[in-house]
Amino acid sequence: MLNIGLLGAGRIGMVHACAISAHQGSTLCAVSDVFEQNAAALATQYGAEVRSSDEIIADPSIDAVLIATSTDTHSDLIEAATQAGKAVLCEKPVDLSLARAKACQSAVSKTGKPVMIGLNRRFDPSFGTMKAAIDAGEIGASELLSITSFDPAPPPVSYIKVSGGLFRDMMIHDFDMATFLMGALPETVSAVGSSVVDPEIGAAGDVDTAVVTLSYADGRIAVIKNSRRAVYGYDQRVEILGSKGLLQAQNVLENTVVKSTTDGVMSAKPTYFFLERYMPAYAAEWDAFVTALTNGTDMPVTLEDGVNALCLAEAATQSVQSGAPVKLADVG
Amino acid sequence: MLNIGLLGAGRIGMVHACAISAHQGSTLCAVSDVFEQNAAALATQYGAEVRSSDEIIADPSIDAVLIATSTDTHSDLIEAATQAGKAVLCEKPVDLSLARAKACQSAVSKTGKPVMIGLNRRFDPSFGTMKAAIDAGEIGASELLSITSFDPAPPPVSYIKVSGGLFRDMMIHDFDMATFLMGALPETVSAVGSSVVDPEIGAAGDVDTAVVTLSYADGRIAVIKNSRRAVYGYDQRVEILGSKGLLQAQNVLENTVVKSTTDGVMSAKPTYFFLERYMPAYAAEWDAFVTALTNGTDMPVTLEDGVNALCLAEAATQSVQSGAPVKLADVG
Amino acid sequence: MLNIGLLGAGRIGMVHACAISAHQGSTLCAVSDVFEQNAAALATQYGAEVRSSDEIIADPSIDAVLIATSTDTHSDLIEAATQAGKAVLCEKPVDLSLARAKACQSAVSKTGKPVMIGLNRRFDPSFGTMKAAIDAGEIGASELLSITSFDPAPPPVSYIKVSGGLFRDMMIHDFDMATFLMGALPETVSAVGSSVVDPEIGAAGDVDTAVVTLSYADGRIAVIKNSRRAVYGYDQRVEILGSKGLLQAQNVLENTVVKSTTDGVMSAKPTYFFLERYMPAYAAEWDAFVTALTNGTDMPVTLEDGVNALCLAEAATQSVQSGAPVKLADVG
Amino acid sequence: MLNIGLLGAGRIGMVHACAISAHQGSTLCAVSDVFEQNAAALATQYGAEVRSSDEIIADPSIDAVLIATSTDTHSDLIEAATQAGKAVLCEKPVDLSLARAKACQSAVSKTGKPVMIGLNRRFDPSFGTMKAAIDAGEIGASELLSITSFDPAPPPVSYIKVSGGLFRDMMIHDFDMATFLMGALPETVSAVGSSVVDPEIGAAGDVDTAVVTLSYADGRIAVIKNSRRAVYGYDQRVEILGSKGLLQAQNVLENTVVKSTTDGVMSAKPTYFFLERYMPAYAAEWDAFVTALTNGTDMPVTLEDGVNALCLAEAATQSVQSGAPVKLADVG
Repeated sequence: MLNIGLLGAGRIGMVHACAISAHQGSTLCAVSDVFEQNAAALATQYGAEVRSSDEIIADPSIDAVLIATSTDTHSDLIEAATQAGKAVLCEKPVDLSLARAKACQSAVSKTGKPVMIGLNRRFDPSFGTMKAAIDAGEIGASELLSITSFDPAPPPVSYIKVSGGLFRDMMIHDFDMATFLMGALPETVSAVGSSVVDPEIGAAGDVDTAVVTLSYADGRIAVIKNSRRAVYGYDQRVEILGSKGLLQAQNVLENTVVKSTTDGVMSAKPTYFFLERYMPAYAAEWDAFVTALTNGTDMPVTLEDGVNALCLAEAATQSVQSGAPVKLADVG
Repeated sequence: MLNIGLLGAGRIGMVHACAISAHQGSTLCAVSDVFEQNAAALATQYGAEVRSSDEIIADPSIDAVLIATSTDTHSDLIEAATQAGKAVLCEKPVDLSLARAKACQSAVSKTGKPVMIGLNRRFDPSFGTMKAAIDAGEIGASELLSITSFDPAPPPVSYIKVSGGLFRDMMIHDFDMATFLMGALPETVSAVGSSVVDPEIGAAGDVDTAVVTLSYADGRIAVIKNSRRAVYGYDQRVEILGSKGLLQAQNVLENTVVKSTTDGVMSAKPTYFFLERYMPAYAAEWDAFVTALTNGTDMPVTLEDGVNALCLAEAATQSVQSGAPVKLADVG
Repeated sequence: MLNIGLLGAGRIGMVHACAISAHQGSTLCAVSDVFEQNAAALATQYGAEVRSSDEIIADPSIDAVLIATSTDTHSDLIEAATQAGKAVLCEKPVDLSLARAKACQSAVSKTGKPVMIGLNRRFDPSFGTMKAAIDAGEIGASELLSITSFDPAPPPVSYIKVSGGLFRDMMIHDFDMATFLMGALPETVSAVGSSVVDPEIGAAGDVDTAVVTLSYADGRIAVIKNSRRAVYGYDQRVEILGSKGLLQAQNVLENTVVKSTTDGVMSAKPTYFFLERYMPAYAAEWDAFVTALTNGTDMPVTLEDGVNALCLAEAATQSVQSGAPVKLADVG
Repeated sequence: MLNIGLLGAGRIGMVHACAISAHQGSTLCAVSDVFEQNAAALATQYGAEVRSSDEIIADPSIDAVLIATSTDTHSDLIEAATQAGKAVLCEKPVDLSLARAKACQSAVSKTGKPVMIGLNRRFDPSFGTMKAAIDAGEIGASELLSITSFDPAPPPVSYIKVSGGLFRDMMIHDFDMATFLMGALPETVSAVGSSVVDPEIGAAGDVDTAVVTLSYADGRIAVIKNSRRAVYGYDQRVEILGSKGLLQAQNVLENTVVKSTTDGVMSAKPTYFFLERYMPAYAAEWDAFVTALTNGTDMPVTLEDGVNALCLAEAATQSVQSGAPVKLADVG
């Protein structure tokens, strides 16, 4: 039974608290948050204690910490926790700064402690099934990957300004998905973006609609489409063409009801909230972390994976600014 | 916060224990089972005590009991618990004997205690959406209901022999669904059945494949199809035609992956186990029970609903034996 | 090259004229109709002559006639044409009277001339694929067949009165589909019907909504659902459960466009008109007739098939009137 | 009634001959082909005469010619036919050379004769429905267009060598579809391509897999994916995201049968041949040509549209070679 400390009791921290408690191999012992009442609510619900993050990290009875705090604290907390001998599951991204993330990676490697980055979509049942089918050769050699990832609605412009931009904040999941499914990093990143959804986002120096093309050394190609607004829901689709077929992961719908009237044949919308869409993925992610820790096997998603995703985001950011393709080797 | 005693720690009891614990308005206090190790395992996992069912029913600190024991004990336990002043959620069916179920209904009514029968499918998100759409007039006046309900594989013949037969054991859910969606009981029940899946089932005096037609006083018609074997999974579909359209609830699939090859376009199968299929329904059912109890409102599924479903099963059993339609008024 | 005479230039005659002309093995030579301008229009379009049906039947240069006249003339024309040595493709039904149809069958058998009945749905690409899959054992032994067949809108009550009733006029196609897919006739027919769509139809002595259950000697069951009104289009679905799987033929939609908005995910409706829905079936039906005639092989749909469908319609009509199952052997 | 001369009696010429004959407003009078037996076969089937293309163009009784000859003859024949006073429907592309196509456009403009280019996909029922929905504002302002266009199998390398390359030969349809749906030309074209399907195609100087991103002046983006090989069939999908929703045109399947077994849920494949997929589009295209000619209205697809598609293909070809985005204004 692993004793777990949770750093961060916000929206995503609540999801993790539930997964930690429901797992037969882990117990939620302590919770911290900059807003103490958030921590207190979670602690009460799950029979844990409220402490500061420093106290949790210093407590030798805590086996692992789950970092669900704000992005700017991730690197520092990862370093502190691993140096204190703890295993870590940290929400993505490692850091908005690629240099800082790499420094963190270096610092962690000296501790030898296992760190997993919460690129949770790898644990989605459909994407996982897709990966297994690719690895099993069910579509032969993979050739062309397409990822469609639209948010239901843009965040406030105030958030956009501190988000690191669409590529680091939103498409980072898709960059990791590309690496996960293609099993390699691309050579070249070519990005196009604009702010057709909301000119205020453009005024804030970001894009809200983007298409990024990734070219791999062996000729394979991936294309990622992002939009900050799909009014019908959270649109998360992946497809990959191979020499022997096509795999598609389609949207998860709110229910299975179909209504046929004189207007047409109406189905339910995709689930709207990312937490609802990826709830099974969060549970499976936690199980994978506990299993790896218990068995002493490699973490299924590493700090390097987190840095790689950030590196691709950096390349895309440079490409959309310069209007030219960027070699990944030239980044960072 | 309601204190709950769980009677029965088998497969379905485990599902209920999880729902009780996860609900913010209820606590699992005590568990009983004829096999004490079953009760002990659940009690340990959720921090409850192991007790006998008599002790649980007698404990004044317990607000409500959830009865998930074997069918032949349902009526007795419902009566005992309500007479002890407890609210009850009891798994279907009330009893295999219609007469006994009616006697139970009569006994309970004297206690004035609320009893809900676990006809869980009413709480399935898709069927619930369908019911709401019907009530909102989205398909106008309802006319023709069809329920397809196939199990993935037949139970052992030893179970068949004590099950009460397909109509009481399996189609009872569909009879209740018909009543739920049509909002009325039929006048006439006409059943056809055979044992094309397994002649052993026929030799045991039961059918494994059946079609039942329900005729309502206002001319509406419902048809229910059951099979004990659909090798591709648990097939649970409902559709209803109205004057302004058609509503269909389709199957829940294991995942959303679609694979296109030279063989064809392959999607995932329907979920195989009824517990997986109806897991959200069990959670919603428990929430509805807690809410009704907390608010002092009527139970959303009553003992009368349970008796009505049994009554339809009795009529269908008579019809398939006589080869002629049976008037519901002539049953029981 | 077969020389063809077309009797009847109404809506369905126009469809056949097109199929006859487009086929490389047949030429449309002559057209008759009780309204001469109908015949003239078709004759002009396809370079044929306008003649009376008597003249066409008497013309030794005509190899075959296609009978697309009103139902009450079918039997007489089939007899006259076969006695004049012609092959015949006649629209369904053979006759509204089972006795008359059987007399026609007897008369034709004496001529030895090939007669095909236009039960066109057997030639629908999806139903044909389904039949081939059943015969190839792809779902093992068939067990339970379901046919859903809804018209978009009821015909005028004036037509209902002379139609022979829903079972002979509309469900006759579904009876034939059941025989086609099950490869046998049922022992027992059990029908339930009402006029929930339009009480005027009930006042005219007919039903507009019906469910018929067919029981086969070997325990298999088929259920047919008909409604005269499905406002969303022509709903034509078939599914069959077997020991190794399920086959479903779904609706043909007007197009493949899907629109996702805040309202939901909207697809196109099923095609509305039966001629549009079954246009490929009419072409394939004609090709099958020409091929059988050219090769001297058996007609793929026989006069006996037409009589059998009528027999089932007769049984269903009796069952809905008596409220009891009818043995097919007791009919006709 | 328009008298039509058909130049070219190959595979696509046969499709057009059928459409011309079936149309109530046109008659196929004469057919030419470099292989006279091809012309003879079509002429016999449809009651037309075999002539040389020069004879057809010179015949004053011919109202219009349909040019379905090899690509290298298109420009010359368009010029000759229009100078002889004929209306023209010419298969795409106008020419492989952008300069030659522009010269042809200039020459035709002096004749004042109507020329339509056979960019047939605009007439596909689903793409047409999509265009109408966009124009009707059903998804608000369009933002992000995606076109997936995969051939079932690559052509012989010998064809590849004379094809003008993937962008001019295959993606030209998708460039036109982008212009059709976006209602504008892009500013910038950015292409990535490789030969992962067959290195022989790469050795021949072409790509077999490509992704092209189009950036529009107003910030909108389109992305086109092409592959020469999708073993499951002809994959033709389009989707467009707008401020109020998403429109998708999905594949046309061979039939509507779905088979559920222990292996999964299997549907039919997309239609394999482009002629089968777009047969309704060819008929609608011809009808649009005849209607425009008869009514004296503008051609629905112009020579300028053909030149624009070629211009985009030229830009993509340059982009994939240079590895950098290309401004459309810098092309041609």
